Amino acid sequence: MTDSATTPAAPRADRIFTAALVVIGDEILSGRTHDKNIAQVAAWLGVQGIRLKEVRVVSDDQDAIVEAVNALRVRNDYLFTTGGIGPTHDDITVDAIAAALGVPVIVHPEARAILEDYYATRGGVTEARLRMARTPEGASLIPNRYSGAPGICWGNIFIMAGVPTITAGMLDALTGTLEGGAPVLSETIGCWVGESEVADLLRNTEKAHEGVAIGSYPFFREGKTGANFVIRCTDADQLATCAAALSQALADLSREPVAGGI
Amino acid sequence: MTDSATTPAAPRADRIFTAALVVIGDEILSGRTHDKNIAQVAAWLGVQGIRLKEVRVVSDDQDAIVEAVNALRVRNDYLFTTGGIGPTHDDITVDAIAAALGVPVIVHPEARAILEDYYATRGGVTEARLRMARTPEGASLIPNRYSGAPGICWGNIFIMAGVPTITAGMLDALTGTLEGGAPVLSETIGCWVGESEVADLLRNTEKAHEGVAIGSYPFFREGKTGANFVIRCTDADQLATCAAALSQALADLSREPVAGGI
Repeated sequence: MTDSATTPAAPRADRIFTAALVVIGDEILSGRTHDKNIAQVAAWLGVQGIRLKEVRVVSDDQDAIVEAVNALRVRNDYLFTTGGIGPTHDDITVDAIAAALGVPVIVHPEARAILEDYYATRGGVTEARLRMARTPEGASLIPNRYSGAPGICWGNIFIMAGVPTITAGMLDALTGTLEGGAPVLSETIGCWVGESEVADLLRNTEKAHEGVAIGSYPFFREGKTGANFVIRCTDADQLATCAAALSQALADLSREPVAGGI
Repeated sequence: MTDSATTPAAPRADRIFTAALVVIGDEILSGRTHDKNIAQVAAWLGVQGIRLKEVRVVSDDQDAIVEAVNALRVRNDYLFTTGGIGPTHDDITVDAIAAALGVPVIVHPEARAILEDYYATRGGVTEARLRMARTPEGASLIPNRYSGAPGICWGNIFIMAGVPTITAGMLDALTGTLEGGAPVLSETIGCWVGESEVADLLRNTEKAHEGVAIGSYPFFREGKTGANFVIRCTDADQLATCAAALSQALADLSREPVAGGI
């Protein structure tokens, strides 16, 4: 953020920080564009010690955006949005979020200066381009090193571009600026086994290791059935203990565990 | 569906049919797994003449699933879910949806018969495998030609597997069984132009063609800026008229339109 940046803080072990993401765009809901931002934002949040709790994909429709933003911003530490902040008529995210917040839309002086600088050698700032300097009143900016037009931070809301490479640059600019908790660590153990054959083993292993969650993700390859078991925990020792126990239990069934997954 | 299948119907032009999708799974929210079902379900729905209005991604948590299912099932013609119907402890979708509906979970006799048949040569039905025969009371089944365990239909809710190839098989089994409206047709025109340069042109073209929506999707390739303009409309003639007008307007600016997109 270019001003009022949150002070980077050491991870806090005493509570869980959560985030939600609203993906805005008819192109996702029509199936034309395959979303890449959910996984990208999720992975980035994980490194910041923040858990992605919920995602909504909504269309380029003000009521839909307002509903999603207002539902999610109050029950999460952070709310991220992607999409709809370009210069064209279908880019309505800023207006919708301002409406959700009950504040006016202004032309942000710092954003205007950024665009004037960026477009100085690219034909100058036009009315359409100036749309990308509009923010809800009271916002700060998220730098965009790829294409000039900045992202927007307002309170706990982070409004980012939808083009995944530009989203990535904005996330990069935010790295280390948000308070988070202990990151969730994970270890994956793969096995050529049908998950139904080891369902009890998985349930019992999870139960025996408090604070640990085990997810089971089956796959079908080479005409065979396999699964990856993902163990998640914020404590490295507990994680290692559980991973060792699960590997041993699979080996005891003569099912070879594959560290790191298959 | 294996029983109470909806009668296939000719597209109805008199109203819009909508659907919502709930993607269930910690693996999506952790960033480990890149979702493929949103685009797949969206594209399939489009062909059925049904519009995907909204998507929620929620964790393997009963309260989160109940909230999403109950919010979306009442305001859409159809609700689809993916994920969480396997045999392991983290598969809680059936229990959560039954709770949302206020009905008990039963072992569905037809689903049990399918599993007994499928596992006859694969070690037999165990307690874990029988979990995949559980449905909310009053359900019918969606065939799964890949891995036995069926999907579930309850009222306007379609509960499908999360592994994308299995989801695809279930969608295939549902093809043509749901009532829909006129499919949204689309035409894409690409252009090596910054979208901010043609923002007014796009806005005016959309305004001049009622019932037509134009989306603008910028990209950055080969060191250059371009955009694809996607025109959407349920009427083929209106679509063609708008596409021709947009192409002509771009050509008038000496910006070569590329039919089909770039």
